[in-house]
Amino acid sequence: MTVHERVAEFAQRAYQASSILRTASEEQRHAALTRTAELLRARQAKILRANAIDMERGQEAGLSSAMLDRLLLNEERLEKMAVALAEIMEIPDPVGRIIEEWTRPNGMRIRKVAVPLGVIGIIYESRPNVTIDAASLCIKAGNATLLRGGSEAINSNLALGEVLQDACQAAGLPRSCVEVIDFTDRAAVAEMAKMDQYLNLIIPRGGHGLIRAVVENATVPVIKHERGMTQIYVDETCDLDMTVELVHNSKVQRPGVCNAVENLYVHSKNTEALRAVVTDLQQTGVEIRGCPRTCELVDGCVPATEEDWDTEYLDMILSVRVVDSMDEAMTLIAQHTSGLTEAIYTDNEENAERFLREVDSACVYHNVSTRFTDGGQFGLGAEIGISTDKIHARGPMSVRELTTYKYVVRGEGQIRTS
Amino acid sequence: MTVHERVAEFAQRAYQASSILRTASEEQRHAALTRTAELLRARQAKILRANAIDMERGQEAGLSSAMLDRLLLNEERLEKMAVALAEIMEIPDPVGRIIEEWTRPNGMRIRKVAVPLGVIGIIYESRPNVTIDAASLCIKAGNATLLRGGSEAINSNLALGEVLQDACQAAGLPRSCVEVIDFTDRAAVAEMAKMDQYLNLIIPRGGHGLIRAVVENATVPVIKHERGMTQIYVDETCDLDMTVELVHNSKVQRPGVCNAVENLYVHSKNTEALRAVVTDLQQTGVEIRGCPRTCELVDGCVPATEEDWDTEYLDMILSVRVVDSMDEAMTLIAQHTSGLTEAIYTDNEENAERFLREVDSACVYHNVSTRFTDGGQFGLGAEIGISTDKIHARGPMSVRELTTYKYVVRGEGQIRTS
Repeated sequence: MTVHERVAEFAQRAYQASSILRTASEEQRHAALTRTAELLRARQAKILRANAIDMERGQEAGLSSAMLDRLLLNEERLEKMAVALAEIMEIPDPVGRIIEEWTRPNGMRIRKVAVPLGVIGIIYESRPNVTIDAASLCIKAGNATLLRGGSEAINSNLALGEVLQDACQAAGLPRSCVEVIDFTDRAAVAEMAKMDQYLNLIIPRGGHGLIRAVVENATVPVIKHERGMTQIYVDETCDLDMTVELVHNSKVQRPGVCNAVENLYVHSKNTEALRAVVTDLQQTGVEIRGCPRTCELVDGCVPATEEDWDTEYLDMILSVRVVDSMDEAMTLIAQHTSGLTEAIYTDNEENAERFLREVDSACVYHNVSTRFTDGGQFGLGAEIGISTDKIHARGPMSVRELTTYKYVVRGEGQIRTS
Repeated sequence: MTVHERVAEFAQRAYQASSILRTASEEQRHAALTRTAELLRARQAKILRANAIDMERGQEAGLSSAMLDRLLLNEERLEKMAVALAEIMEIPDPVGRIIEEWTRPNGMRIRKVAVPLGVIGIIYESRPNVTIDAASLCIKAGNATLLRGGSEAINSNLALGEVLQDACQAAGLPRSCVEVIDFTDRAAVAEMAKMDQYLNLIIPRGGHGLIRAVVENATVPVIKHERGMTQIYVDETCDLDMTVELVHNSKVQRPGVCNAVENLYVHSKNTEALRAVVTDLQQTGVEIRGCPRTCELVDGCVPATEEDWDTEYLDMILSVRVVDSMDEAMTLIAQHTSGLTEAIYTDNEENAERFLREVDSACVYHNVSTRFTDGGQFGLGAEIGISTDKIHARGPMSVRELTTYKYVVRGEGQIRTS
C-alpha cells in the first residue's frame, strides 16, 4: 500500500465517523470526554510504558534535553490532561448556537446556526498531550479528528489515541471519531494536506518548516499557528510605574512563549521610561539589545543587529529601539510584526485609540500585559492554538472557532418571483 | 521579467495600498464607489470601445454565443453596474462592527471588532462586470483587490480597472486599491495563488478546472465557489398545491443557476405528490429523468443514468427518484450533495426539524423555494459569490464575509500572574 492509500484509509474512516459525531448530542460528546479522563487515570501504567519506549529511543537518537522534556509523560502530566478535559466540558456548547436570526419581508425565517466543521486534521510535533487536548476540543465541537504527531512520540500518541477511541466507543460514538496515523513516514504530512475530499481543515502546530510543508502542499484549508513577534510601544507620556511593571510582566513572566515581548520601541522624549524599564529588566537578568540611541542612553546594552528586530528570542533577551514618533513606531511594528500581539503603554487616550485602530494584529492592547493573548485568559476556554491567519479564526482559537455555520430557513410556501 | 515577477509587482502594489485603505473612513470608501458609478456613466463610449475589441477577437476565436453574451457590455449592463454600486453603499458598514464585547474579572475590557482582511485576489472568467462588482464589495469592506479576469475580456477589464483606479484616486485613496493584471499568460493564476506574503484570500469564480488550478497551487487561503447540486425531498405527507408550486419555482424560475433544483426525491407513499409535481413540470417543458419506479408511475419519463444523479443540468431537466423513507432520502442527499442547498417539503414538523438539523448544507429549507440561496434574497446585500467551503464563509458571501476581526483590549495595568 502506498503512503497515499494508507493515509486515505485513516482519513476516510474519520470522514465517515464525522457524519455521526456531527449530530451527536452534547451529552454524548461529554460522555466521550468523561470516559477519556477516566481512562487516562485507569491506564496510567500502560500509557507510561508506551511513553518510556519513546523516551528511550529519543535518548538513543540524541534528542536534546528540551525535546526529551517535551516528550515526557508522567503521572502529573496525565492528571493535568484529565483535569483539562473537565475544563473543556465547562465551555458552553458551541454546536447549535444561534448566531443570528431574522425574518425576511416575505415571512421566511432565517437562522444562522453554528455547526461542526466535519473532520479536522492536526499535525504537530513532539508533545503527546496535544493528542488528548486537540482531539477533545474537536469532539466538544462535534468534529472528528485525524492526528499526525511527531515520529518521536508515536508510541505515546498511539496509546493516547486508543484511550480516545475506547472512550468514543463507550459513549456510543464511532471509534473513528479520532484517528491517529500509526506510521511515521514523513510523506504522510503532504498526503494528508491534499485530502480535501475528507478533511475540512488542517491545523499545523510546530516550527516554520512543518508549517510551510503543510501550506505548500495543501488543498485542504489550513489555519497556521506560526511564531509570535510580540512588540510594545511606550509613548511620549505614560504612567511610569505601570509601564515598568507591564513591560516586566510581558518579558519576564514566561519568556519562552509567543506572547512574550521581543521588540520594544520607546518615544525619544520619554527617556525616563526607557531608563526605568531597561534598569528593571537588567536587574532581572534580561539582556538588552539596543539601537545606537538606546545604547547611548543606558548602560550594559548590546548593539542590536539587523536580524535581532525579526528574532523571536523566546528567552531573557529584548530588542529596544528609540523612536521619534508614534508613526515611526507603528511603521516599525508593521515591518516586524507576526500579526499576533502588539501593545501601547501611554496615558494619552487619543494616541491609544489610534494605535488600537491602526495596528493590524490579532490582539492589540492598551496598558495591559501582552501575556494575555491566550484563549483561557480571554475567557474563551481552553484553546487549540493561536491562529496567525486572518481567515476563519484570528488569534486564540477555542471550540467556537472549530465550528462553521449553516442557514436554516423555515417558511410556508415562499417562492421567488424575480 | 518572469511571470512571477510581473504578478508580484501587482500584488505588492495592492498590498501597500491595503495598509491605507484598511483604515479609511466609510465616507472615503463610499466616495470611491460614488465616483466609480459616475465614471461608468461618463466613460461609456471608451469602455464600450474596449469591449468591442474583446467581442471582435472573441468572434474571430469562435467563442460560443453564450460566451459572447457573457462577454458583452452595453449601455444597459453598464447602468446596471452603476446601480449595483448604489446598493452596495446601502449595506451597513462592515468595518469596525463590534461583534462582541466583555469585561474579564481582572477588569480588562475585550472587544472583538470586524476589520478588513487586507488584499483579496479574485480570479474569474468571462463576465467583465465582475471587475466592478467584486472590487466594489472589497472596497466597501476596506480591502484592496487584485483582479485576474478571463483573457477574452482583458480589454474590457482593463478599461473598468482604470475606472476603479481613477475613482480611488479621486477619493484620496491609492490607485492600487484595485489592480487588474494586464497580461493574459495562464501561468499568472498559479503565481497569484502562491503570493501569501501579499494576498490574504483568493476567491476563484468559474468552472471546476479553474478552481482546481487555484486550489492545487495555492498557499494563499482560498474560498471556493463551486457548483450547486440542489436537491429536494418531498416527504410522505405534504401540502400538495404548495409542494407543486415550490418544486416548480425551484426548477423553472431560473434553471441556469446554482440554486435551481437538480435532484428530487419523493416518498413512495406520496405518489399523489410525485404525479402532481411531475405533471406540472412536464407541462412547463421540463424533461424528467427518473428511477425505474418513477418511470413506472409517471408517463413520459426518461430513465436516469448513474451520472444523472451527479449532474448539475442548469437546464429544464430534473432527476426524480422514489424513496421509501426520509432516511433513504438523506443518505442519497449526502451522497450527491455539493453542500449548498437542500430542501424538505412536508407538513410533518418533526421530520422537517430532523432534516434541517441533520442535512449538512450551507442552506437548508423547509417549505421554501431553493431559489432563495442568494445574498440579496437573504437580506445580506449584494454578494461576491456563494461559498461552497465551510471555512470562514459558507453560502452567500457579502461584505461582512470579506472582513476578519481583531481583539482590542483596554486596561489600566493588568498583568498576568499565572
